[in-house]
Amino acid sequence: MSDFSLDWGREPRTGVAEAVLCEPKSPAQIAAILGAAAENGARLLLTRLALEQHDALPSALRERLDFDPLSRTAILGGLPPGRPVEGALIVAAGTADLGPAREAARTLAFHGCAAPLIADVGVAGLWRLNEQLGRLREARVLIVAAGMEGALFSVVAGLVAAPVIALPTSVGYGVAAGGAVALHAALASCAAGVMAVNIDNGFGAATAAIKIIEAARR
Amino acid sequence: MSDFSLDWGREPRTGVAEAVLCEPKSPAQIAAILGAAAENGARLLLTRLALEQHDALPSALRERLDFDPLSRTAILGGLPPGRPVEGALIVAAGTADLGPAREAARTLAFHGCAAPLIADVGVAGLWRLNEQLGRLREARVLIVAAGMEGALFSVVAGLVAAPVIALPTSVGYGVAAGGAVALHAALASCAAGVMAVNIDNGFGAATAAIKIIEAARR
Amino acid sequence: MSDFSLDWGREPRTGVAEAVLCEPKSPAQIAAILGAAAENGARLLLTRLALEQHDALPSALRERLDFDPLSRTAILGGLPPGRPVEGALIVAAGTADLGPAREAARTLAFHGCAAPLIADVGVAGLWRLNEQLGRLREARVLIVAAGMEGALFSVVAGLVAAPVIALPTSVGYGVAAGGAVALHAALASCAAGVMAVNIDNGFGAATAAIKIIEAARR
Amino acid sequence: MSDFSLDWGREPRTGVAEAVLCEPKSPAQIAAILGAAAENGARLLLTRLALEQHDALPSALRERLDFDPLSRTAILGGLPPGRPVEGALIVAAGTADLGPAREAARTLAFHGCAAPLIADVGVAGLWRLNEQLGRLREARVLIVAAGMEGALFSVVAGLVAAPVIALPTSVGYGVAAGGAVALHAALASCAAGVMAVNIDNGFGAATAAIKIIEAARR
Amino acid sequence: MSDFSLDWGREPRTGVAEAVLCEPKSPAQIAAILGAAAENGARLLLTRLALEQHDALPSALRERLDFDPLSRTAILGGLPPGRPVEGALIVAAGTADLGPAREAARTLAFHGCAAPLIADVGVAGLWRLNEQLGRLREARVLIVAAGMEGALFSVVAGLVAAPVIALPTSVGYGVAAGGAVALHAALASCAAGVMAVNIDNGFGAATAAIKIIEAARR
Amino acid sequence: MSDFSLDWGREPRTGVAEAVLCEPKSPAQIAAILGAAAENGARLLLTRLALEQHDALPSALRERLDFDPLSRTAILGGLPPGRPVEGALIVAAGTADLGPAREAARTLAFHGCAAPLIADVGVAGLWRLNEQLGRLREARVLIVAAGMEGALFSVVAGLVAAPVIALPTSVGYGVAAGGAVALHAALASCAAGVMAVNIDNGFGAATAAIKIIEAARR
Amino acid sequence: MSDFSLDWGREPRTGVAEAVLCEPKSPAQIAAILGAAAENGARLLLTRLALEQHDALPSALRERLDFDPLSRTAILGGLPPGRPVEGALIVAAGTADLGPAREAARTLAFHGCAAPLIADVGVAGLWRLNEQLGRLREARVLIVAAGMEGALFSVVAGLVAAPVIALPTSVGYGVAAGGAVALHAALASCAAGVMAVNIDNGFGAATAAIKIIEAARR
Amino acid sequence: MSDFSLDWGREPRTGVAEAVLCEPKSPAQIAAILGAAAENGARLLLTRLALEQHDALPSALRERLDFDPLSRTAILGGLPPGRPVEGALIVAAGTADLGPAREAARTLAFHGCAAPLIADVGVAGLWRLNEQLGRLREARVLIVAAGMEGALFSVVAGLVAAPVIALPTSVGYGVAAGGAVALHAALASCAAGVMAVNIDNGFGAATAAIKIIEAARR
Repeated sequence: MSDFSLDWGREPRTGVAEAVLCEPKSPAQIAAILGAAAENGARLLLTRLALEQHDALPSALRERLDFDPLSRTAILGGLPPGRPVEGALIVAAGTADLGPAREAARTLAFHGCAAPLIADVGVAGLWRLNEQLGRLREARVLIVAAGMEGALFSVVAGLVAAPVIALPTSVGYGVAAGGAVALHAALASCAAGVMAVNIDNGFGAATAAIKIIEAARR
Repeated sequence: MSDFSLDWGREPRTGVAEAVLCEPKSPAQIAAILGAAAENGARLLLTRLALEQHDALPSALRERLDFDPLSRTAILGGLPPGRPVEGALIVAAGTADLGPAREAARTLAFHGCAAPLIADVGVAGLWRLNEQLGRLREARVLIVAAGMEGALFSVVAGLVAAPVIALPTSVGYGVAAGGAVALHAALASCAAGVMAVNIDNGFGAATAAIKIIEAARR
Repeated sequence: MSDFSLDWGREPRTGVAEAVLCEPKSPAQIAAILGAAAENGARLLLTRLALEQHDALPSALRERLDFDPLSRTAILGGLPPGRPVEGALIVAAGTADLGPAREAARTLAFHGCAAPLIADVGVAGLWRLNEQLGRLREARVLIVAAGMEGALFSVVAGLVAAPVIALPTSVGYGVAAGGAVALHAALASCAAGVMAVNIDNGFGAATAAIKIIEAARR
Repeated sequence: MSDFSLDWGREPRTGVAEAVLCEPKSPAQIAAILGAAAENGARLLLTRLALEQHDALPSALRERLDFDPLSRTAILGGLPPGRPVEGALIVAAGTADLGPAREAARTLAFHGCAAPLIADVGVAGLWRLNEQLGRLREARVLIVAAGMEGALFSVVAGLVAAPVIALPTSVGYGVAAGGAVALHAALASCAAGVMAVNIDNGFGAATAAIKIIEAARR
Repeated sequence: MSDFSLDWGREPRTGVAEAVLCEPKSPAQIAAILGAAAENGARLLLTRLALEQHDALPSALRERLDFDPLSRTAILGGLPPGRPVEGALIVAAGTADLGPAREAARTLAFHGCAAPLIADVGVAGLWRLNEQLGRLREARVLIVAAGMEGALFSVVAGLVAAPVIALPTSVGYGVAAGGAVALHAALASCAAGVMAVNIDNGFGAATAAIKIIEAARR
Repeated sequence: MSDFSLDWGREPRTGVAEAVLCEPKSPAQIAAILGAAAENGARLLLTRLALEQHDALPSALRERLDFDPLSRTAILGGLPPGRPVEGALIVAAGTADLGPAREAARTLAFHGCAAPLIADVGVAGLWRLNEQLGRLREARVLIVAAGMEGALFSVVAGLVAAPVIALPTSVGYGVAAGGAVALHAALASCAAGVMAVNIDNGFGAATAAIKIIEAARR
Repeated sequence: MSDFSLDWGREPRTGVAEAVLCEPKSPAQIAAILGAAAENGARLLLTRLALEQHDALPSALRERLDFDPLSRTAILGGLPPGRPVEGALIVAAGTADLGPAREAARTLAFHGCAAPLIADVGVAGLWRLNEQLGRLREARVLIVAAGMEGALFSVVAGLVAAPVIALPTSVGYGVAAGGAVALHAALASCAAGVMAVNIDNGFGAATAAIKIIEAARR
Repeated sequence: MSDFSLDWGREPRTGVAEAVLCEPKSPAQIAAILGAAAENGARLLLTRLALEQHDALPSALRERLDFDPLSRTAILGGLPPGRPVEGALIVAAGTADLGPAREAARTLAFHGCAAPLIADVGVAGLWRLNEQLGRLREARVLIVAAGMEGALFSVVAGLVAAPVIALPTSVGYGVAAGGAVALHAALASCAAGVMAVNIDNGFGAATAAIKIIEAARR
């Protein structure tokens, strides 16, 4: 009997497809899952796939993957056809937050959604944020990626009417190491309507955004 | 000079009105804010207003408030006119979670939204949840209130396509005291698309839901 | 004088044999213990034996070991003769939980007990669990291995009459890193009769299951 | 629509009846649940019912309850008829641990099981434990209640063959305040076969013991 | 022999006078210290003096105190003569932060320094802060009091050249209860030159500000 | 569009220049930022630049950097011309604290300030500190770097009139691992006027000191 | 059968008598223990006996107790006859630390040992400590009681040859609330030979000191 | 000016010599300190010297060191002449605790004290401890090294009259990772007279034992 059982019915049921969290899996386990998907002709999203794990996969599988080392994501089977759905916008406080921000962008793309990414708008230089205010206010849902003290979540949420998904990142050291300060800042925000996902969980932020956009289209 | 400055422009800018978090304020401070709002003929929502705080307010102000002790909310100026906007649904794991769940319901009502509340559908008896599956799948956005181990967030999110706002409650003792286990369960959920607000933050869950519903109406 | 002293009388006294926790020991220390056991003709179970530690053992000892890298366990002296005792069942939420789940299965086998292992039945897809409900209800004791938010412990315990031993795993990231969320979910479960062992402690889950099965046979 | 929904089918499905955790509930909520049960002629177990909560119940309901302030438990409808099932034994490290230990004993009695309670056998005076060794070794399952450093869990588990359910208590101060040290000592025990329930969760320890005894009777 | 020994030489040595932290002291201990100071004709600052402690002091001592319940401070012997030194400015995020903010203002006054207090300029409504930008930029040192997510520290520090002393407050609930999130936000700030004092430590913020102003006057 | 946007206007606005926190960035990201600065003829400070990151930069960029491995800082474009501003003094408890202490010294130098560094004056040998008392009392602002139990912050602050910036370091093991004990000791100091920056944040300590010195010069 | 079992043989076996930790016990439980001791003509030490608990004891028992509210200790049966053994010295950082310091002094007296108590010698005014240096250096063992940042432990241990028992107290607020910072400072001390007991555990500090003095007399 | 300043007067002042904590130092820093000591003809103890650090020292220095990789200690200048002082005994729960236990033994030897080491007497097999009871009761001071749940501290302290220094080790995983559970078990011990040092701090345990033995010889 096989050790895994992919939930192919998840997308019709919940609106988002099952993805494979690779970090705690061995290359052999990942290869087995990929092989089964490839045989089925299925599309598949892999997250938290380290460069070393990717390089340890059989080359025949590697060649079929679209792999992005910065976000540690890989896509099997390409993007869906047709014009992507718009409405989501991703904001990253600094260049160091781009890994999780791109995990979100790639997850959105995998599900047929487009999301521009605005980077380096941290609160220590508010004028950079102000310059982007027009684009921020046009979005239907925002994903804001920030580490350290996470002040950007509150500042953005105080400026726009759209729901804000806070994506805390593990960028920081000392008390901020691991991202808990940014996460707690999102949860304790004095601005209304901020929702948080787990630290560095770009996939979760994106799937939540997709559900919000889909809710608007029903 | 006055010690407070209400942000009357917040609703047009962010879609939700400013509310008054009463817990850390003295009755005198609350009375001053209420008095200023009443003079302006403004509507106002008060959250985390303890029974003792409420009873210490001047009776002339108390009489103008619609106070609900279970949710510790009070509304000045009544609900908005017109038929409420539908689409939100609130699910509470147990009767002990009703305080935050009702804070969410009352916040939604204050902003002109209706949200039915389904209670006592914890995962230890899945059949109770199954009986409500139809109603769950009709909602455009769900608020799920649960304390203790917070398993309900993942189970519901695995069954519906709508976005799920997890509202962890401080119900529990031992390791679960204060609600951190439920909060972490929401953040670490194996189901996609779960977003969390702070522990017992029914106001935050509701304002996020309002923004999601509004995003769908734009 | 020797630096270690194995407790050969432990099995008659407590029903389970002493095992060697290898992680904090040097290869030289492990080799000395193995050598003493081999001289005595004794059977021995080694847990948390990393591949690097295993490979640093003298080859004469290595050849006598049945080593399983996924569960990091090794057995000296083979399994006990005779037909294994039945009654235990192991359930793993995902493929990433298989390491601790197999540590439990191998510990049970070392003590003469058989335990089937059902994998990939996480709560985000309840139908997979429902398909296995018959087998779950036949077991005399269940070991449930899960990481992340650990919702599976409560869901399984709400469906069966047998005692449930929760085996939280360190699978997860962000707030779930290290397994504390899954552990706390087991302890705070709203379902009655869930007991927890330490994170990733498949050995402890298995020895507890053995004691429960033995209690039933007295 | 009612705010609660008791799971009357839980006992046949899981072997233990639903109980009412009273701590987070208002007296009005508790009274409503009790009233519904009394109308049904049902037996019901209430846990974590504070003296103040009990005294605030309507006297007609109070008179029908068997209330024990030390364990904060109350029983509606009396104990089940017939001779209680034997096999469980409860050990408490000190008199201060008697509250949770009695919650366990009363829960066992509610389900028709008898469990003697041995108190004041902490490890600082091992001779007291040695005097009880015969009784300890006769039990089919042991519940050990201890706070502070929780050394008793490991010492008992090293002496007996039966499974040990560790019931950590919140007895202690400084680093031990709240019971986390005792809980962690149970989870990190160097003795095999120790399982833990939540801090002060005598109900959970008892229902686990009932399931273990029932597993032995099938 | 006496149980206390005030350090009268502290002010010449360190620039700030010793103050009496009243919270952990009994009224009798506070009265003894006050009595000794009054006999010496000394001025004295008392911090964290709860209303109950104040009311339990002998009335002869109470009458000589200038007591402020909101900040829980009392001053014996009045303010120093002469025109106060200027340069410090205090900013409070919300009315709930006024207790610690006033503790700082009163400590500054006790040492002969004046500090205006600007309240209710939280980041959820940035325009309120912008209106005060001129005054903020004139100060030689700023004390910023904020609880919840503490985003105000970073926003202010990004706008001014003066050193910013972050005074985190215990205002908040859930993950923000006790003030740790605001403290960590100050320490992890992405803006340069933010320094933090302990949670609710208005006295410490003020004495640091005094030392900074004095450093400028040497 | 570029992924980063340096804030060249920060120095006139806040008194300190933007620095590049390298730890969470890839060598490619660092090289891009350095290249843009070099093209502009700008000076730039890099912090937390690991030796491995430095060695992975293109050699043409490396040659233009003044890199100090102990403090993990690098300076592009040299120090500012003119005689450095005096007034700051840095004190380090032990040789192990020299990394963060030198990060502070180099940051001060980058901004045109000189700061002597006194090392190895921990409180276990108070005579070493006493020997330096004269120099300590001459400084306008002190940065004190200490790990382990951080007692030096309180001892120094009790001896001098100047403001003390506590720079806790991650030196320590067991309970002190990571620097939290030293940080908390700074925040809980019984001596008035101690301010803390994040663990190992020599850059933050230095920029705060610069702002204090500048405040004195206005 | 009785619910408690005092260990009368503990003093000959371990050098210190059993004491009764009263905090987690009901007045009825305390009275039962006291009654049994009084019947035996035994001496008994009670610790952490709150004023409310004391006042709820039967007056006949209360009259036989020597009760000290500040240290929350009571002694039944008086002090032992004969001249007390000398050698221990107790140092308290501030008046707020006198509760635990006196618990230690009273425990020493109960066991026939004398220990002078020096108060208010915190490190923010080192000259007060220097004045007492002669007495400190004469002691055979020192108990140092301090809360907040606990710097006194390291400073004293750097000045004397005798062993130092650190008695951290719960005096403090913010990060220091509960005493963990002082405890960690003792454990992480840069001075050799500091040993710690639990927060506020004056009894433990005293019994350790007694054992050290007795070790010197054997 | 040199970056370090050894405290050669520490031994006469405090009874124990200064040691060099190597972990946070670079090989160059360690070599400089060793070189200075060697020039002075001084003896020196190095602790937490990793194999890699040792191997990176100049061979001329390495040859003069007595290095023990298991305890990560090195001694320059040999042991002191004369017959070692007796009275201390070291007990280790398991072979995995031998690193810190040997650090203690080597520190004692460096200071001219002998201490036998008894290993593998964990509480899961109490008979092994009982066999050593005579030797335990002869010691003047005991160092007990244990990780995991640390039950051995309480059990030993309940059996002997000598003071017990608990040396918690970082042996363990899951909740016990890093040694905090063992440390807390020592601090919360129900047995009187247990004192704790930091996790893995064999040096601190030994210097405390030396001070206790010296106190007995004065």
